[in-house]
This record gives sequence, structure tokens and C-alpha cells, in this order.
Amino acid sequence: MMIYLDNAATSYPKPETVINGMVQCMKDYCANPGRGGHALSVASGKAVMEARETISSFFGIKNPLQLSFTKNATEAINVGIKGILKPGDHVISTSMEHNSVVRPLKTLEKESGIEVTFIRCSEFGELDIEDLKKNIKKNTKMIVSTLSSNVNGIIMPVGDIGKVAREKGILFLLDASQGAGTIKIDVEEIGADLLAFPGHKALLGPQGTGGLYVKEGIKINTLIQGGTGSHSENLFQPDFMPDMLESGTVNTPGIIGLSLGIKFIENMGLDILKSNKFALVKRLWEGANEVKQIKLYSKNDIHKNSGIVALNFEGVDSSEVSYVLDKVYGIATRAGLHCAPMAHETIGTRASGLVRFSIGCFNTMEEIDHTIRALEEIGANLK
Amino acid sequence: MMIYLDNAATSYPKPETVINGMVQCMKDYCANPGRGGHALSVASGKAVMEARETISSFFGIKNPLQLSFTKNATEAINVGIKGILKPGDHVISTSMEHNSVVRPLKTLEKESGIEVTFIRCSEFGELDIEDLKKNIKKNTKMIVSTLSSNVNGIIMPVGDIGKVAREKGILFLLDASQGAGTIKIDVEEIGADLLAFPGHKALLGPQGTGGLYVKEGIKINTLIQGGTGSHSENLFQPDFMPDMLESGTVNTPGIIGLSLGIKFIENMGLDILKSNKFALVKRLWEGANEVKQIKLYSKNDIHKNSGIVALNFEGVDSSEVSYVLDKVYGIATRAGLHCAPMAHETIGTRASGLVRFSIGCFNTMEEIDHTIRALEEIGANLK
Repeated sequence: MMIYLDNAATSYPKPETVINGMVQCMKDYCANPGRGGHALSVASGKAVMEARETISSFFGIKNPLQLSFTKNATEAINVGIKGILKPGDHVISTSMEHNSVVRPLKTLEKESGIEVTFIRCSEFGELDIEDLKKNIKKNTKMIVSTLSSNVNGIIMPVGDIGKVAREKGILFLLDASQGAGTIKIDVEEIGADLLAFPGHKALLGPQGTGGLYVKEGIKINTLIQGGTGSHSENLFQPDFMPDMLESGTVNTPGIIGLSLGIKFIENMGLDILKSNKFALVKRLWEGANEVKQIKLYSKNDIHKNSGIVALNFEGVDSSEVSYVLDKVYGIATRAGLHCAPMAHETIGTRASGLVRFSIGCFNTMEEIDHTIRALEEIGANLK
Repeated sequence: MMIYLDNAATSYPKPETVINGMVQCMKDYCANPGRGGHALSVASGKAVMEARETISSFFGIKNPLQLSFTKNATEAINVGIKGILKPGDHVISTSMEHNSVVRPLKTLEKESGIEVTFIRCSEFGELDIEDLKKNIKKNTKMIVSTLSSNVNGIIMPVGDIGKVAREKGILFLLDASQGAGTIKIDVEEIGADLLAFPGHKALLGPQGTGGLYVKEGIKINTLIQGGTGSHSENLFQPDFMPDMLESGTVNTPGIIGLSLGIKFIENMGLDILKSNKFALVKRLWEGANEVKQIKLYSKNDIHKNSGIVALNFEGVDSSEVSYVLDKVYGIATRAGLHCAPMAHETIGTRASGLVRFSIGCFNTMEEIDHTIRALEEIGANLK
């Protein structure tokens, strides 16, 4: 029996309804959505549109046509950043970002004359909103922030960021890769002008899915052009959402799966899932905290943790611990830098990495207790 | 009972092995490939690598690491074109291309100082290789051609194009969206330096999949940067294949499905599938040719047709015919411009569109005969 605690990478398992819905889609009606008038193509198109509505509603997006489907959050973030920033623009981000934000920004800084400021966060990854305010300049066009760190689960003050952005007339791109499916997101309330999310993490959809919401009225360029099934006679890309950002055939079964993942969350209740998840985080955190060699990098606070317990055994390489957890105890975690070197720099684990335990909605208290016993044994063996 | 003749949009149905393999992947081991050392992540990574090998071998790609996975062919084409062309470069393409080629090229022409020449093909879409040769200039960097038209199925002389490209030291990007899974492709024999393909058409994989092969030694830039699971400490994108072109989590179940689609083709035999498919094309072509109001736009020649019968009832809008075929006869076809206005201009159907019957490997002679009777009835009612 394996204990899967790598849900921040990809959630596992998926609800049965997700897989069954994908199978039904592929078996019963999966022709090309929006590319023909026959019964199957219409059925596919209708299913994709319904999924667009379900997912939009989940995020408080009023016009579902402003939501485009992408292959993953990374694509969505890249399109959101590069479709908007122009030479001379300044962009502010945080030191807790994933490489999906850092790498495009560093590339723009190097190649396209765009200024980038990463606000240094605290040793727990907390962002000081005053620091952010101080760094706003006349040419600040956009703020990009993660909803929650994929390294230690710290939750960013995204409502405050949205407020500042709105006051200053700056665009706010929210990367909800960690947190969507756990923390309630309402783009209007938060004040997010752009929202990027993956389907395969806490939203419980399959890999190969994600999305980018772009607030109505924001002008965005495309990175990719191609067939959209609309305005076929035009040799240039159409300029309306979502078609302009959805070139080529979309992942219909994947989108259906993502929509069913979100329906599962809605049926269970987002708040209940969140408090259940935090109960497991709390137990694991407190159990780990009893092991004297362990140093914890996550907060034991539901308002500051989206579902991760990040730790190290002092003086032991994180990869070794993760290896032992897998091989000896059947516990799946992720060690190393988690594609977020700047975040590790921030919390002081750039050299060692850390062991990340990321909780999913199918984990149980028994699994957590088993994990705590494993940590205790590893600690005992280190004595 | 529906007769599905829209396989050039998306093949349907899929082999059972494809769907079963995807379900097994999602249920049994679908963690994040290449993003962790635990058992499930390793299993996912191994499955993706095996799929990469299977697919590479199918296309004669010697080093599977030169094959990157994309969400569809459109992404692959865009990366192939924009990752290589620079201001001042000249690119040659054909008048039979899909908007997935035309739109990125027209966008580069308009915005990035890249010269584009589309070689005008014959009324059946045939490319005269001498015409192509004449248009090569000193700054010609790339030739982009479809393997086969998605409008009328015409097969391009890709071996000849590859030969010319090789002689002149020009890169050849082959768009195999139509034809991959029907026509044998060996990138070395053809001389294709880049190969873009979708998973969800004749390769029998699911939507949400595709790939871009880049010959070893070709320098390509990325459109998207992000987490690759490799060199996580680097704030810039790694510069090796396939990681550099695979930012963010890949579509593991989709890739497994695509690999199983290709295995299905290999088990059946590509040549056998091709000749079976052409037998249906021939029967449909000849049946349609007996209906006096019908004008045909496809060739009745296995060497010049990848599996499409394109036709119009003279004086009748293609959408109307397609509508009647769907509603009255339960036959799924696609009317209109098929995201390829330049190709329709070439064959003279820019105003009317045409009705496209695209054959898949699960179609039967009975279905074709039923379709011919429908065409005969429609013709009789027009008298």
C-alpha cells in the first residue's frame, strides 16, 4: 500500500467520476468541438462549453468566454505574461514563484527590455504588502503572484495584492497552480485580472489541462496562431476570446475530466475539503515537530498553508530522506528544489532542498499517522 | 446508427486499447513524470519515455530525446516556425496549407520582418517542385509544407521537397497533420528536419496530444519557459531536448493513449490500413462521380490521396449538403472552409466551401455504400 503525498505535483488518485466521464466522452461523442455541424461535433462543442461554464462559475468568472483552455498552467502563465508585457514595461513578482513564472520573466528581462522586480519574502515565504507597494514604479504594468507556494504551501495575501493593483491601475496575474481547488478563488473579489491554473492538481482533473482567464477589455496578444474553427477565411488570428487563445484542437476529454473534478469538489464542498485537508496538515506538522532532528518550513495555520508540510532532517540531504520514505515506508514525497530555486533561496534551503509532503483530498488520518511513525523511526535511526 | 466521415478533424472511434491504456494510466500510476523519485513518478516517467521511443521509432527518429510532446500539431508548428525564423529570413510554403501554418507565417510577415512565399498549387492542389525551386532565394531559411491537404487529401511530393531543401541547405518543416498514420513517414528518408504531428487524427490517439521532432544539431528557441523537472536551480530554460520544449507537466495519459494508437497501427500494418482506406476512398469517389450534379475535388489515386473525398453538388452550398447528410442520413461530414481558405482559393471553392468526407480505419464498405446512396438521393431530389 502506497501513501501518496505528492499531490502538489499531480493529485492522485482522481475521482472515479473524472475517469468515467473522460471514457464516456471518448467512447460516445468525442469528435472535434466547434469544427463541424454534425451531431458528434456539436455534442463535443456543447460539452466543452458546459465545462467552460462550470469552471468559470467555480472561479467567479462572469463571462465564460473569457476563459481559455491551455495544456497546463505554464502555458497559461506564459501567455498571460508575454501576451501583455512590452519593452519598457516593469513587472513585479515575488521570491516565492515557481520557474513557470520566474523563467519567462527572466527571459523577458534578458531579451526584451522588460524590467523585473522580485520582492523578497520572509523565511516562511510571507510577502510584506508594503514592500510590494514601495516597488511600484510609473512603468509597472503587471504584478504576478502565486496564490500559494508549491514549496511550503504559504498562502500569499492575494486580496491585498489585488487591491493595490486596482488602486494603481496595474494588472494582476494570479498563478493559482497551488491553491486552486483548496482555497476559494473569486476573480472579482480578489481583483485578479488574469488567472492561470492547472487542471491536474487540486482541481482533480487530468494532466494536459489548464486555463487562462483574461478579464474583459484587456488586450492580449497570442503566442500561437492557427485554426480556431472561427473566421476560417481570415489569414490572421481572430481577436476575440476564447478562440484567439485556443488554436488547434482542444483536449476535449481532458476538459470534461477537469470539469468533473471541479464538480466533485463542489459536491463535497470546498470549505469542508479545505478544513479536512488542514486537519491532516496540522497532525503531520505537529507529529513532525516532535521529532527533534526535524526542521519545519511550513506554517501550522490554515490561513497560511494550502496543504504542504515542508521539512528537513537537519544535516541530511532531502533526496535521501525522500528515497527512504519511498523505498522503506511506501510514502511518496518530493525532495529537491521543486522547480522553484528562488523560493528555496528565500526560505534557506537552496543547498539542501527539502522534503515536501503535499496532502490531497483522498489522504486519511491513518496515512498521516503512518507517516509520522516513519519520521519518528528515521529520526531514531539518526541518533 | 451514425456514419462518421470526419476523421480528418478527429478520428473516431478510438481503438479500445487506447482508451483502456489511458484509464489504466490514470488509475494505476499517473503521478508527475520526471518530477520526483518515488515509485509512481518513476512509473509515469518510464511510461512517457517508452511512448517517446515507440513514437520516434514509428517516424524513423533515431534519438527519441529529439521528440518533444505538444498539446496539438498547431503548437508544434508554431514552435518549429517561430523558434527558428529570425527577421530577414525568407520562408517558402504552399497554397494548400492549413491556417495552423498560414496564420503564424502571416503574423511573422506582418510583425517580424520575415518574408513569406506561398507557392500556388494546381486546381487539385498539386505542388510543382520546379515552382518551389524557382522561389528559393539567398535568405531562404525554411520550407514548410503539409504532407497532405486537409481539404482534398492531395499528397505533397515531400521527398522531393526534402531533397531540394537538403541540396540547398534549407530547413524543411513537415506538417504531418493529415497523413501521419496513413502514409509512411521516415524523417531521414524524407529529409524532414522538423516534423509536427497531432495525436488525435489518423494516429488514433486522444485529443490534447501531438509532437515536434527537431533534428539533432538544429538550434531552436522556446516560446514557453517554465518548470522542466531538470536543472531546477537554473532561472533560465534548459537548452536541451526534449526538456526545453516541454515546460510544465505533460499530458501523461494522453501520451500513453497516442503511443497505443500507434501500436494499434503497427499491429494492423500501416500499408494494409492505407490500402483498405484507399479502397473506401475509391468506392466513394467512383460512386459520387456517377451522380451528375457532383463535382469532385480529390484525386482517385492512392499516391495522390491520403483519405478524403471532397465534393460539391453544383450550385448548392456545401453547408446545406452536409446538414442534410447529418440530419437525414446520419452521415457526419465537414463543410465550409476547413480552416484552410488559401487551399480553397487554390482549388476554386473559396466561395462555396466543399463537403469533405474523410475516411478512417474503422469505416466499412457498407457505410460507404450507404453514403453513395445518400448522394444519389440528394442528386435525384435536386433534379
